[in-house]
Amino acid sequence: MTKVSIIGTGNVSYHLERAFAQATDLLEVQVLPSRSDFSNRSSEKNNGDFDSDSDLVIIAVSDDAIATVSKKLQNTSQLVVHTSGSVPMNALERERRGVFYPLQTFSKNRDVDFGVIPICIEANEKKDLKLLRMLGEVISRKVHEIDSEQRKALHLAAVFVNNFSNHLYQIGNRICQENDVSFDLLKPLIAETASKIETLDPLEAQTGPAKRNDVKTIGNHLTELKSQKLKEVYLLLTRSIQDTHGKKL
Amino acid sequence: MTKVSIIGTGNVSYHLERAFAQATDLLEVQVLPSRSDFSNRSSEKNNGDFDSDSDLVIIAVSDDAIATVSKKLQNTSQLVVHTSGSVPMNALERERRGVFYPLQTFSKNRDVDFGVIPICIEANEKKDLKLLRMLGEVISRKVHEIDSEQRKALHLAAVFVNNFSNHLYQIGNRICQENDVSFDLLKPLIAETASKIETLDPLEAQTGPAKRNDVKTIGNHLTELKSQKLKEVYLLLTRSIQDTHGKKL
Repeated sequence: MTKVSIIGTGNVSYHLERAFAQATDLLEVQVLPSRSDFSNRSSEKNNGDFDSDSDLVIIAVSDDAIATVSKKLQNTSQLVVHTSGSVPMNALERERRGVFYPLQTFSKNRDVDFGVIPICIEANEKKDLKLLRMLGEVISRKVHEIDSEQRKALHLAAVFVNNFSNHLYQIGNRICQENDVSFDLLKPLIAETASKIETLDPLEAQTGPAKRNDVKTIGNHLTELKSQKLKEVYLLLTRSIQDTHGKKL
Repeated sequence: MTKVSIIGTGNVSYHLERAFAQATDLLEVQVLPSRSDFSNRSSEKNNGDFDSDSDLVIIAVSDDAIATVSKKLQNTSQLVVHTSGSVPMNALERERRGVFYPLQTFSKNRDVDFGVIPICIEANEKKDLKLLRMLGEVISRKVHEIDSEQRKALHLAAVFVNNFSNHLYQIGNRICQENDVSFDLLKPLIAETASKIETLDPLEAQTGPAKRNDVKTIGNHLTELKSQKLKEVYLLLTRSIQDTHGKKL
């Protein structure tokens, strides 16, 4: 039986463990907090000790803590991977190293369908890449070999489409609250905006006053926004759309 | 039978006409280009002439053209509405005036499910509001009375959550192209980001380096972005998230 140890007790660890457990009985998965002792090699292990003969260790901790946890594993020989989008594989200073990056946003109080989540894998050795692919395919239909440079780019792009978009939703919510209308009214629009790019290139899907160079509406919106900071965001994104579409404000 | 004339041949007109036609046989809907002559009162009408005894005229033209079209209707007495988010109802200088604003993004080459689209209605007279509600409910399960001020705010918020979010998708696409990874990898993330706010407040759903105040990753991203303009967008949105969550960069 393939044994997997997941180190870390955050959102990624929580959802990964659940996904493995739901997908198969053929994996033995243990979850350990990152403060654990990973040097334990005694044959009589206590419950909660590190299973040093696991085939794979998944370090699912914050980016800053990856190196520290990795060092604690220096006397072990199995494959060790991290789950980070932005940390290069070589941050793990050992022979058998790799990355197992599920490209998704995780919150503890929200279920995700792992089947559609792209798992980006990378490994130093061919046999390890094979193991990661096998494991990835247990939970997802989309396993991709992605090197550290490409993964870094994906992570950066993800910040734009996920973190920044969500922040725009929050600004939309704020404008609704300040004007006594329900944010619920915008939810079908948000769903359609995201759904549109399944079939249209975002460049082609672009609409709105910036794209149309509708100077009057842009002016009205800037007057309407009372917050200087929101004005700045509005103006910069408007200019960015106009640059992209060859318009001048 | 209730007769509706839709003036304009753009995306809103196209989708409205289709939605009415699919929903019921009890409406008679004609679509006319905005250059038409709306003064025709002869009893022998040619095909394509304005049906001056229609119960409702929906002006579905660009914001700038609404006043012009409205003036051409000054000798008529029926209810006239426009479909714009940002133009006040009173831009229609007549007694029986109103607004019928479907809060959605429309593209000709993409079908929409009108049933979930909020229709924001407003009218000068009670009986006209009733007519608009009845018509809205023919095609949508979400008809809301929204006054001109609230609608203006909704339209502004819609620019943030729709136009600006789509632009962020386009930036994500560009970063992928420049680094030879497929934008398809980001699509499940985009879908989940939009879907998350169905159940979580966007403030609560926020994740990422700005929210975590992960200065190292932010620095790496800024180095990675070669375009000065994208750096500006990244930095401003990062600062805006940090302001919102009480963090300092």
